[in-house]
Amino acid sequence: MSDHATGGASHAAPSAYAFPLLIKQLLLAPLRQSAGQEIVYRGEHRQTYAQLGERIGRLGSALARLGVAPGSVVAVADWDSHRYLESYFAVPMLGAVLMSVNVRLSPDQIAYTVDHCGAETLLINAEFLPLLAQIRSRLPQLRRVVLLSDTPVAELPDGTSHEYETLLAGGNPAHVFPDFDENTRATSFYTTGTTGMPKGVFFSHRQLVLHALGVLSALAVNPGGQNLHRGDVYMPITPMFHVHAWGMPYIATLLGVKQVYPGRYAPDLLLKLKTSEGVTFSHCVPTILQMLLDAPGSTDHDLGGWKMIIGGSALTPALARAALVRGIDVFTGYGMSETCPILALGQLRPGDPGQAAHAARSAAIAAGATPAEAATGAGAITDEEVARRARTGYAVPLADLRIVDPDLNDAAHDDRAQGEVVARTPWLTQGYLHAPDASNHLWAGGWLHTQDIGRVDATGSLQITDRIKDVIKSGGEWISSLDMEALITRHPAVAEAAVIAIPDAKWGERPLPLVVLKPGAECDAATLIAHLRACADAGEISRYAIPDTVRFLDALERTSVGKLNKKKLRDTVLAR
Amino acid sequence: MSDHATGGASHAAPSAYAFPLLIKQLLLAPLRQSAGQEIVYRGEHRQTYAQLGERIGRLGSALARLGVAPGSVVAVADWDSHRYLESYFAVPMLGAVLMSVNVRLSPDQIAYTVDHCGAETLLINAEFLPLLAQIRSRLPQLRRVVLLSDTPVAELPDGTSHEYETLLAGGNPAHVFPDFDENTRATSFYTTGTTGMPKGVFFSHRQLVLHALGVLSALAVNPGGQNLHRGDVYMPITPMFHVHAWGMPYIATLLGVKQVYPGRYAPDLLLKLKTSEGVTFSHCVPTILQMLLDAPGSTDHDLGGWKMIIGGSALTPALARAALVRGIDVFTGYGMSETCPILALGQLRPGDPGQAAHAARSAAIAAGATPAEAATGAGAITDEEVARRARTGYAVPLADLRIVDPDLNDAAHDDRAQGEVVARTPWLTQGYLHAPDASNHLWAGGWLHTQDIGRVDATGSLQITDRIKDVIKSGGEWISSLDMEALITRHPAVAEAAVIAIPDAKWGERPLPLVVLKPGAECDAATLIAHLRACADAGEISRYAIPDTVRFLDALERTSVGKLNKKKLRDTVLAR
Repeated sequence: MSDHATGGASHAAPSAYAFPLLIKQLLLAPLRQSAGQEIVYRGEHRQTYAQLGERIGRLGSALARLGVAPGSVVAVADWDSHRYLESYFAVPMLGAVLMSVNVRLSPDQIAYTVDHCGAETLLINAEFLPLLAQIRSRLPQLRRVVLLSDTPVAELPDGTSHEYETLLAGGNPAHVFPDFDENTRATSFYTTGTTGMPKGVFFSHRQLVLHALGVLSALAVNPGGQNLHRGDVYMPITPMFHVHAWGMPYIATLLGVKQVYPGRYAPDLLLKLKTSEGVTFSHCVPTILQMLLDAPGSTDHDLGGWKMIIGGSALTPALARAALVRGIDVFTGYGMSETCPILALGQLRPGDPGQAAHAARSAAIAAGATPAEAATGAGAITDEEVARRARTGYAVPLADLRIVDPDLNDAAHDDRAQGEVVARTPWLTQGYLHAPDASNHLWAGGWLHTQDIGRVDATGSLQITDRIKDVIKSGGEWISSLDMEALITRHPAVAEAAVIAIPDAKWGERPLPLVVLKPGAECDAATLIAHLRACADAGEISRYAIPDTVRFLDALERTSVGKLNKKKLRDTVLAR
Repeated sequence: MSDHATGGASHAAPSAYAFPLLIKQLLLAPLRQSAGQEIVYRGEHRQTYAQLGERIGRLGSALARLGVAPGSVVAVADWDSHRYLESYFAVPMLGAVLMSVNVRLSPDQIAYTVDHCGAETLLINAEFLPLLAQIRSRLPQLRRVVLLSDTPVAELPDGTSHEYETLLAGGNPAHVFPDFDENTRATSFYTTGTTGMPKGVFFSHRQLVLHALGVLSALAVNPGGQNLHRGDVYMPITPMFHVHAWGMPYIATLLGVKQVYPGRYAPDLLLKLKTSEGVTFSHCVPTILQMLLDAPGSTDHDLGGWKMIIGGSALTPALARAALVRGIDVFTGYGMSETCPILALGQLRPGDPGQAAHAARSAAIAAGATPAEAATGAGAITDEEVARRARTGYAVPLADLRIVDPDLNDAAHDDRAQGEVVARTPWLTQGYLHAPDASNHLWAGGWLHTQDIGRVDATGSLQITDRIKDVIKSGGEWISSLDMEALITRHPAVAEAAVIAIPDAKWGERPLPLVVLKPGAECDAATLIAHLRACADAGEISRYAIPDTVRFLDALERTSVGKLNKKKLRDTVLAR
């Protein structure tokens, strides 16, 4: 290489340190500057960052002694815990690959994914030992099983070869982790579509470090709210087995804030921890937020000032408003398994609708008002604010998001023209494990295809309107199922809605809303169609999108990660 | 390479985009999301970010047409301007190297640096044409000279071959800048010691992008103050020819905030722009801050809420207090030319002395109080707060700072033990241009040697106490010249002070304070020695550090960048 292309390598001192981007570097600041800060597990176990650092050293050295070598895969099956956090660091810092097992998958799928990624080591919560017994014969590559238990274990249960705390007791707290190529694979996990077996995505040290810096920058620069700052208290409510809990454990650790790991999610425990530990920052899917709002005794908890990113599925305006009324500073995050995951954030920006109202509410709550009292007068919650928070939002730094036609031509940024969202960032999976066709499809034309349809306004704010496979094409026009679902759930009788396409001789496809009513509520198809006609009169939906009929169901089928399973819904409805 | 070491390259789609870290990527978010945001030059010229993007395209295409190729060096000699900002992007985005000329150097040194870096192209402010005429014969590699002028030019003056705005008018606003290796050199500039010719440092695209992300993260995560957020208005007061104006033009652009470029620094214009443009974030050396506070009419300006990083030399507690009284949210930044530059920031953190007082003052000022009124009661300025702001502070994310003995063993973090500060971060110059011995010395043992002496407390906060070459060794103990200077300037009669070592038969060295009194003030050596004895009684300085005498001077010699020139001061004093 020429001197120019190597940044002046010919002038570099032979001993100059080139500084690879490695996960261990994320620990530099917090271990020195936040050594006494707390990490809490279920309110029952507490440790400091200094202990986190020592336990990472112990875990790394113990795993290395067991034979975990660079490149070997360590699978973890656990609920959110301090132990999981330790594995987030220690496993990749050895040069090994952390594979987070999606414990919500079927036993078949779990066996497939653990074997497919080549895991030789499994760290497993005692709760999943019966599952392991069921699939053990299908894991021929597995050589050791480490038990994770909240209580001391007298003797190792069947199927396990080691116990986590015993291993750590014999480990070296000052273990020195080596340097290596920043492109070394650090993590891998599997993403479920609605068809076929799960597909494995993978991320390098460099990618995880850049995701942490890029996303932290985007979060932190927002004044007034929807941000993450020093002094916040972090609790994940997206599982650590799901896309690195959105990368937030890495970010929270880098920042040195107090962290709270809630184990298996139970609404009452989550609400209790929010109050007792002073949690101020979380992230979850809409279903969990709804559960937190609806849980028995939920209104006994003061949720004011809880900053919360909602992703995984669209945050509907109705849910956003319900959360705001309770004082939750709710906003949208956008991404997927393939994207590490965060691509965009729906923060209010200076001058945006609602920013002043949010400031007024925050000031009122700080002065002792209840969230409901704060949401009056200058703090009133307007439709504009709700819409802004429910909007997909702005690409984070270094994220290149476009909306394009099938030939990769850009759609106009007029908030009307739609296109597929394609992405380039420094933190996208470069393919799927052992799946070259799917990898080529994902990266067709050199852009990662999200399979989401969206529109962009003149300020660069993205609004996802549909999934490519869910979009409804009626009379040559696209109808957004997500937009229509948001409008239907605005009706007071509706609990949830899914809009699917049904074949139509004249129009090609027509939209069919599948609706679940709230308990005890009554409503008929004509009423909902009239409701949507009023929306069309107000310009919120196209007239051709008004459905001809509505189907009422008792429940909507969802995938293992809580997303509407539209394929199954379509199959079920069309089979009738 | 194995599949492991390449992050799963064997699973990567051939068309997957690896996303090199390039300066052009910093423009992705702001050009889309802040297209209408303003960039102001001296209050006279205004352009939007959209125009910035177009002008970068025009400049890049025009330079390429002139023959600026990848690897060639483009030198810029200008005061802080929108044009300089455009060159910060367009030149490196071509794959060429931006060399920022330190126009405060002597003509001899300027000729040396421009020729030494191999500049073929020079962009030069009309003001410096007489200088160019003087040194032109010593620049045999220079092939073209582009005039930068605030006013239209009828014909090209002698010595120039092109004019900037004319070039841009013929350029392509949609020029597509290529991808290349992120380790390509992007910038280079020269750092002056107090001996010998300036030495050239150099930084790659990757380094500048990582500096921007790391420093922005550190700045943005601080709640309440000493931060940079959306909605801020940025104005540099460290020149753009000095270490990329601390990298802040890249950071401010990435963030999409309003930017104000003040041209040549004049205190009255800086104060006027602060008020008229609503500037909220700046950075400068202590000397400039002092000038702003002392300028005629300065007190007519409301400086409340102006966040300001002070670096280059130590921020003394006395100056920090004087700035706080005026409402300036002043804090320390630490770094040097070799480090891109930022390594650490002296922000107040949650729970730190002064954070609550700062919050009280901010609230009072927001409610209409003057800075002086706000600095009473709960907002009173304590010595603890002043000391915290004047402290060197905390390493930013990914910065590995140690204090070590000559064998690279760590000194204790007890805020007493001292050692040389050595560093590793992803943004350190890997050597000096054409100077292998100096490069090896800089990177001895694989750590960048800052030649600063410091101590670290148990929370990881660094305090620089001296330069290695300025530290005073008396009776086997180190005496910090910086600590003593801070204590001396606390005396109301003192304007500034420099403490140097003088040889002593008994003790090896003894400290000698050189003191400049405030205009009209009277004070003698005995008074200052008594003042320091009182400091020793209070435990603020060692008893053996109390000087035997004091020398009064009319002024203190400084280097071209405003630092005390202790070598010259020593030579002068010892020669008498």
